[in-house]
Amino acid sequence: MRMVDLIQKKRDGKELTKVEIDYIIQNYTNGEIPDYQMSAFAMAVYFKDMTTEERANFTMAMVESGDQIDLSAIEGIKVDKHSTGGVGDTTTLVLAPLVAALGVPVAKMSGRGLGHTGGTIDKLEAVPGFHVEIDNQQFIDLVNKNKLAVIGQSGNLTPADKKLYGLRDVTATVNSIPLIASSIMSKKIAAGADAIVLDVKTGAGAFMKTPEEAEELANAMVKIGNAVGRNTMAVISDMSQPLGFAIGNALEIKEAIDTLNGKGPKDLEELCLTLGSHMVYLAKKADSLEQAREMLQEVIASGKALETLKVFLKAQGGDESVVDHPENLPQAAHTFELAAEEDGYVSEIIADEIGTAAMILGAGRATKESEIDLAVGLMLNKKVGDSVAKGDSLVTIYSNTENVEDVKKRIRDAYTISKDAVEAPPLVYKEIKQ
Amino acid sequence: MRMVDLIQKKRDGKELTKVEIDYIIQNYTNGEIPDYQMSAFAMAVYFKDMTTEERANFTMAMVESGDQIDLSAIEGIKVDKHSTGGVGDTTTLVLAPLVAALGVPVAKMSGRGLGHTGGTIDKLEAVPGFHVEIDNQQFIDLVNKNKLAVIGQSGNLTPADKKLYGLRDVTATVNSIPLIASSIMSKKIAAGADAIVLDVKTGAGAFMKTPEEAEELANAMVKIGNAVGRNTMAVISDMSQPLGFAIGNALEIKEAIDTLNGKGPKDLEELCLTLGSHMVYLAKKADSLEQAREMLQEVIASGKALETLKVFLKAQGGDESVVDHPENLPQAAHTFELAAEEDGYVSEIIADEIGTAAMILGAGRATKESEIDLAVGLMLNKKVGDSVAKGDSLVTIYSNTENVEDVKKRIRDAYTISKDAVEAPPLVYKEIKQ
Repeated sequence: MRMVDLIQKKRDGKELTKVEIDYIIQNYTNGEIPDYQMSAFAMAVYFKDMTTEERANFTMAMVESGDQIDLSAIEGIKVDKHSTGGVGDTTTLVLAPLVAALGVPVAKMSGRGLGHTGGTIDKLEAVPGFHVEIDNQQFIDLVNKNKLAVIGQSGNLTPADKKLYGLRDVTATVNSIPLIASSIMSKKIAAGADAIVLDVKTGAGAFMKTPEEAEELANAMVKIGNAVGRNTMAVISDMSQPLGFAIGNALEIKEAIDTLNGKGPKDLEELCLTLGSHMVYLAKKADSLEQAREMLQEVIASGKALETLKVFLKAQGGDESVVDHPENLPQAAHTFELAAEEDGYVSEIIADEIGTAAMILGAGRATKESEIDLAVGLMLNKKVGDSVAKGDSLVTIYSNTENVEDVKKRIRDAYTISKDAVEAPPLVYKEIKQ
Repeated sequence: MRMVDLIQKKRDGKELTKVEIDYIIQNYTNGEIPDYQMSAFAMAVYFKDMTTEERANFTMAMVESGDQIDLSAIEGIKVDKHSTGGVGDTTTLVLAPLVAALGVPVAKMSGRGLGHTGGTIDKLEAVPGFHVEIDNQQFIDLVNKNKLAVIGQSGNLTPADKKLYGLRDVTATVNSIPLIASSIMSKKIAAGADAIVLDVKTGAGAFMKTPEEAEELANAMVKIGNAVGRNTMAVISDMSQPLGFAIGNALEIKEAIDTLNGKGPKDLEELCLTLGSHMVYLAKKADSLEQAREMLQEVIASGKALETLKVFLKAQGGDESVVDHPENLPQAAHTFELAAEEDGYVSEIIADEIGTAAMILGAGRATKESEIDLAVGLMLNKKVGDSVAKGDSLVTIYSNTENVEDVKKRIRDAYTISKDAVEAPPLVYKEIKQ
């Protein structure tokens, strides 16, 4: 078998066999196939796509290119959730304790990474003392005991995907549905999930700008998951504006606590109930989505969700007092209000710009070497559809520096106020099952 | 400027500017742009093509990536001829002395290379004593004096093309009209041609299998040439079967002599008159193609073409006696006849198979290290359209080994004899000018 022939086969729009795909991924991983052949192949895939069978085989070949996490010692169906990313997405912090409170085992492997705010681990480290330096056995024991634990990424997971992702980034082959879908799914599968709930974001602040694009990606991932024996479904949700109010690490921890307490932003709560219902249902803890939703509302009302959060934080060294006393979270030295300059209705909040403003404050990493300031960030006081009067605070800025003029300018540019009333965008566009 | 953005621009079907194309070629040549970006770019070009302006800029950027031969010290319009390659293509050996006999300066830079037979230099070396080890000044002096000299490829010509060609070969991006056309044209332009006559082959034995594909390539090259100030035209000619009778180095020298003597194969003579007329016309040695053709026929009839060949061979150390005594050329130890097994008409001769048979005998190089046997090869006694009787010799095999069973089998497989009369294919499909 020669890689040049396989590139040509894909270039000519033909379907590759499992043996051919295994050959490509194995030999790319071990360095036998050079980057220059793989990038030509990726460009051919960009133009000629892959069938569902090819996508499933490509995904599994990447899964098998490295270590796979064995979660079989954890009782129950392990349901993982993945979001394609956006601004102020606090869903993981809410969902993990929420579904764990219903006995769904949440064995979360998380990372740090670059972005507007930190990754899930960064956010959790805003809780004083919390750490993820636990070994695999402790991790499994904690999930069995408390139904929830978080561990840092370790082992050599999907090295083929890591290598290919880096290559796609510099060869204009990122934006390819089969390559995006297999990349995401390979990581989830290698991390040991039995079932997967996908939150595919759409809108200006998301990678998929339109609901149609998001649906195409969601369909691709749902088909791959189910083709390889992982019960998978997807929700397409709005990211035309940031989700919830908080953008920042400690701020999002507080927002998650509020939401688990029934006092969070309505959009965040609703999305968590939607995603959570599917997780509970896929974990076979409820017979219907309606029942699952009721159960989730019950553990919020009863305080059991908050209690699960406390137990989880404490078990990994965290100061669980933050749940009742959020003032124990890191606090920024200064707050500033950004006031509306006119009456009207918020018609647009450019999510990316808000995210960048938060990053400039120090909430996220611009490069791998950046240090995160856990205390800083933004609280959106007005969202799309809200009416505003001149002088109302649109956003509260939490900063550890006094000069926030560029941040203010960026936020002001991100907001559009119209004279006419505006409807809030729909939160969930579609749910996609096999 | 970033290469990833330029790949994306081409991927999205947009036109690249001259500055962008120069950036790509300069930085690819000096190693700043890695192969993995260039191969993704080449695949994007494969799918999205290039405009005429992009193709011209791409060609000139490759020309400017290395040395350019300065032929300005040679008087007159230097017309170069290029063939896209086939089996038994003796045209260069005929055309060079033929047009030189009319005062058209032929300053030929040639190579060896791989293939069914040797390159032009290998073929000329079948003439005892002939060599191309002359310096640039001698080369120019010889052309000014005799109108014809041949020199080996030297200098760092079109390094960008060399590098890109090697990359395309292993990334399934060979078969792209803009990349083929710019590759060929960059080499001709860097070699100093003022005007260019292209012989684009079509048929089973050619790279372009159909006249339509050949026409597309011919059009592309003619447009590039004229866009960059080189008077360029193309002839689309048949390569559904080998051209002429001879396939082999000394055998082709003899065939060229026969043709310059008016006694060559009719198809070879006709193609040389067609291509030669255009060369003479582009060199402004005739006012019309008809006049040019008559002039060519005159120098054949008068012996001036043969005389020009003799002077040329002698000037570069060759034994010019071969022109009158072809028995002084290297002779194979054995000849074998391949007899027809039935009566009928030749309906097909698979050119590639005939070429491979000649290579097996030793007429060409399978790898760079192969040694060429200048004496061996094939003479086709029957061509498509010819009637054959059982027992007639189809092909004469010139060999230095006694066992030629596999060569015979290959030739027999290459020939198809039909019961019904067959017409010979047209020799020239089309002539393409700007």
